[in-house]
Amino acid sequence: MFGRVSETQNVETFRGRSVPAYQRIATAIRDKIVSGELAGGEQLPTELELAEQWGVARQTVRNGIAVLVSEGLVVAKRPLGHFVRKRENMLYRPQGESRDQPVSPEMDRFYQQITEEGRVPSQTIDVSLVQATPDIAQRLRVDPGTVVVARRRVRYINGEPININDSHFPLDIVKDSEVMLPADVARGTNQVLADLGYPQDRAIDEIYTRMPTPEQIHRLGLGPGTPVAVHYVTGYVADGTPVRCTVNVLPSDQHVIVFERKFERTWS
Amino acid sequence: MFGRVSETQNVETFRGRSVPAYQRIATAIRDKIVSGELAGGEQLPTELELAEQWGVARQTVRNGIAVLVSEGLVVAKRPLGHFVRKRENMLYRPQGESRDQPVSPEMDRFYQQITEEGRVPSQTIDVSLVQATPDIAQRLRVDPGTVVVARRRVRYINGEPININDSHFPLDIVKDSEVMLPADVARGTNQVLADLGYPQDRAIDEIYTRMPTPEQIHRLGLGPGTPVAVHYVTGYVADGTPVRCTVNVLPSDQHVIVFERKFERTWS
Repeated sequence: MFGRVSETQNVETFRGRSVPAYQRIATAIRDKIVSGELAGGEQLPTELELAEQWGVARQTVRNGIAVLVSEGLVVAKRPLGHFVRKRENMLYRPQGESRDQPVSPEMDRFYQQITEEGRVPSQTIDVSLVQATPDIAQRLRVDPGTVVVARRRVRYINGEPININDSHFPLDIVKDSEVMLPADVARGTNQVLADLGYPQDRAIDEIYTRMPTPEQIHRLGLGPGTPVAVHYVTGYVADGTPVRCTVNVLPSDQHVIVFERKFERTWS
Repeated sequence: MFGRVSETQNVETFRGRSVPAYQRIATAIRDKIVSGELAGGEQLPTELELAEQWGVARQTVRNGIAVLVSEGLVVAKRPLGHFVRKRENMLYRPQGESRDQPVSPEMDRFYQQITEEGRVPSQTIDVSLVQATPDIAQRLRVDPGTVVVARRRVRYINGEPININDSHFPLDIVKDSEVMLPADVARGTNQVLADLGYPQDRAIDEIYTRMPTPEQIHRLGLGPGTPVAVHYVTGYVADGTPVRCTVNVLPSDQHVIVFERKFERTWS
């Protein structure tokens, strides 16, 4: 045991309680991941290396790493070892639908690494008539159970499902339009709504964070410890009538939601 | 067994695999919670009622409910029973700092139930000099390890911690200002920055979704299945220099992040 810390000594306290070594190992590695010191895709030291470094049994190291796997920070790639989970952080910009240019050039500098170079996007679309669930009904200001049009899309990158986008429209507005067709609408459904006499002039974005449902886990192929952001967009025409409610489900390991704001109040 | 479905029959299939009864019970209840049919705070039927309704053993019902507890959708309140978790959905509006009035009156109608009537807010503030972690350094465009000023706040409602807000500033900008004092700045730190010659005119908001770290679980008193939204705000002055980076940690069961957008492109 010369030159090593024995396991019984290898205990610190946190608010008066002793912290087991496996948790301290998890904390040390987690801190490096969360702060960015250990980057996505980087390999962790081997179990043996960590066991020697911390002066603990390999099983203790394994327990520490298991905590990080359950938190979604580390992935096991057998037989290679453990790696910091690569968060793709695909740039998801709600404002993209309502303007052509970003407000500020920081946007590009900031995320230049995220461009979809060489990545192949695709999507599936199905359209159905559904009874509005209470969350949709509230936002479209109809009674729950009212029949609305649901355009459901799953988006893929390189064949892997990446997010879910379900848009809901009042039936009487879109019933004779191409919104009803289960195919891409080249000019965009917002333009179709405008052509039908319902040009949207503003939207409310709401972002909720949740653990995924089993259906979402299945549809999106989510790993352990992967919460989702649920993003509602409700679009309004000038008189305040809601004409669209979109629900986007965005896995946490693949997306960062970004807004740019010009300050309307200035400090000077 | 008259009039009941026997447990072996009580199995459906999902993509060719049979789904155990406890998962089907969880799914049925979850669907009602997610859609809003079962509201936050509502009590679930008792284990006995569910067992009779589904024609299964009480343990099967218990297993189904345990799934929902781990997902953060249901809470146990012994000896009363199980309840739909009440998501407070405190309205968190990043735009609030940069303007006085919401763009649209929907805001108020939409969330009138969320006003903090009778709720008592408070906060703790500490200020320290820290070495910028890579995430902060990248956003403030300094080298990792550069000393910056960190103003760390924990906000409470009725004495319960509700979110964490840590703002980081370049040391040379704020070193002689009240930003350094561990007390509330009545005119706001953005006004202080402006008075120092650094009026911000825009910001980038980034929203990440994660499982909380143990430190966040402890500081915020988080229950099982409670992911957090991590919201970075980077504020820029007119020449594009970042002068502030705030990190907000928002528990998922207490917050909805809301933006309002005026469409800059119109469809007509």
